[in-house]
Amino acid sequence: MKRIMMDRPGAPAEVVRIEEIAEPGAPGPHDALMELVASPVHPADLLTIMGMYAGDPGPMPKVLGKEGLGKVLQVGELVKHLKPGDLAPVLLAQDGVWQERQNVPAENLVALPPGGDPLQYAMSFANPLTALLLLRGVEMGGWVIQNAANSSVGQYLIQLAKKQGIRTINVVRRDGLADELHNLGADVVLVDNADLPRRVLAATGGAPVKLAIDAVAGESAARLSACLSPSGVLCNYGMMSGRNVQVSPAALIGNDITVRGFWLPVALGKLAAAERASVFGEIIPLVASGMLKAKVEATYPLTRIQDALAHAAKGERKGKVLLTLR
Amino acid sequence: MKRIMMDRPGAPAEVVRIEEIAEPGAPGPHDALMELVASPVHPADLLTIMGMYAGDPGPMPKVLGKEGLGKVLQVGELVKHLKPGDLAPVLLAQDGVWQERQNVPAENLVALPPGGDPLQYAMSFANPLTALLLLRGVEMGGWVIQNAANSSVGQYLIQLAKKQGIRTINVVRRDGLADELHNLGADVVLVDNADLPRRVLAATGGAPVKLAIDAVAGESAARLSACLSPSGVLCNYGMMSGRNVQVSPAALIGNDITVRGFWLPVALGKLAAAERASVFGEIIPLVASGMLKAKVEATYPLTRIQDALAHAAKGERKGKVLLTLR
Repeated sequence: MKRIMMDRPGAPAEVVRIEEIAEPGAPGPHDALMELVASPVHPADLLTIMGMYAGDPGPMPKVLGKEGLGKVLQVGELVKHLKPGDLAPVLLAQDGVWQERQNVPAENLVALPPGGDPLQYAMSFANPLTALLLLRGVEMGGWVIQNAANSSVGQYLIQLAKKQGIRTINVVRRDGLADELHNLGADVVLVDNADLPRRVLAATGGAPVKLAIDAVAGESAARLSACLSPSGVLCNYGMMSGRNVQVSPAALIGNDITVRGFWLPVALGKLAAAERASVFGEIIPLVASGMLKAKVEATYPLTRIQDALAHAAKGERKGKVLLTLR
Repeated sequence: MKRIMMDRPGAPAEVVRIEEIAEPGAPGPHDALMELVASPVHPADLLTIMGMYAGDPGPMPKVLGKEGLGKVLQVGELVKHLKPGDLAPVLLAQDGVWQERQNVPAENLVALPPGGDPLQYAMSFANPLTALLLLRGVEMGGWVIQNAANSSVGQYLIQLAKKQGIRTINVVRRDGLADELHNLGADVVLVDNADLPRRVLAATGGAPVKLAIDAVAGESAARLSACLSPSGVLCNYGMMSGRNVQVSPAALIGNDITVRGFWLPVALGKLAAAERASVFGEIIPLVASGMLKAKVEATYPLTRIQDALAHAAKGERKGKVLLTLR
């Protein structure tokens, strides 16, 4: 069977390879033998390959892949909450999902409701939870502004905000996206440029915007921060521009803006176990019912990993690129 | 008599002028007639002239000048805590200090101990209080890092930190400043470059650095933030580079760094009246005794305002430029 290895940080074509290894044995008493069904290629995967992702990458070579949907093939003798055929999200502490079959501890596996879209299930953890936790603390009726609004997290955030009665200003890089984002529930859609603060003010009628959510960094972050009301917060969770987050001293000093970062592993680590179960439990039914979804641009088998990575790295995709086993 | 007016935001040579006006009348019952002794030209004055300072500049034309030392010429009949000849800092809510004589409300005037250096007294408010309040909350024995360490605020901060048992890493732009800053009480002096985080780590032996104080912005802010320990704070209070504050997503996301701004009027506004009196009372004896001081590069009479502004705008000064009446 096959798995996708990374030898060292570098260009995907040079450092990522397919490795042929023996099938795993039977699961231990607390484990489940899982077969990969599908897994998204996230920007975080590309950053990990290039050595630019947050945190310690751990020892190399290593198996790549941050989240995916797995099918239970066999369970250990002490595992009672899963049975062969169940679908469950596979989330490993530090990469390792892109492998045809593997034994994983069963305690972190939760069986998903039957009948959901496997590709949507494969993306049901990292991005929806990021969107949900980014919105935490925003009051019903309040406004938030985000850039990269057409990204996967951006689209989840629009849908979750709509459901919670939070109003969204959605900043995108190009024309032609407004209808689609309005259909998802966006209140305002604006193309990013230097005039952004004035157009935001016109759109909100001067209502306070206390939270700006930045996945682009660079000057886009500075423009978002200039749209915030006094004592607002700019929260960065990505770096699509590959540049530093920028914010003007006028915003920091004159408008009392705070800049923070958001990283899902840290945010989840701060939650008590019951809260984690609760946020996960909030997302799963929405994905299962199709109410919360991300667009899919293409799927590739594991064996076409290089094509999948190249496609995922393209700037103007219309949806996610996913890997599938078959 | 003369005062220094600004007509509109712009280049100092074009928008700043000397105006000849009538002498003020006798002070009202609650006022004091003050004569200007000396006043520093702060970066904040230059930014105000260029229209780049934080906050609303108020109506134009307006009298410039943020702080200075005044001598009491005459007091209103209900003013008991001041007498002619007393020296007191003149601090107006929004500029207006650069005027030969003027009546001001006496309630905000505090007589300074006799015998202090008038030039030092003239600078005893904005910069020492900024340094004092920036250090608030840092524990004794803790480390802070600052850039622009050779600026006036930077030098006050070194002296106040030393007095409080706080250890300082002082980042400067050029060689040749280490001896002087060590004499003021600096623990570590480093020239700014890309290797800064590694040299900071070596200097502290890996002890946590929880606060970075940034007056430069641009990439210098990003380098400071890369020296912080997890969950540290980058606090910006100036923009000597004229650029946006930069901070890497890796610092924000991977190291949980927060970025804030500091502006003295806001910070003082958050203090209760008794606390404000207390921080002012903490500074004055130190300035009076000469224990806390800033370097003076040059003094100019009010009539040479353009020379004073041009000199203050130079990058590599060795101290403050001040205006004097005589």
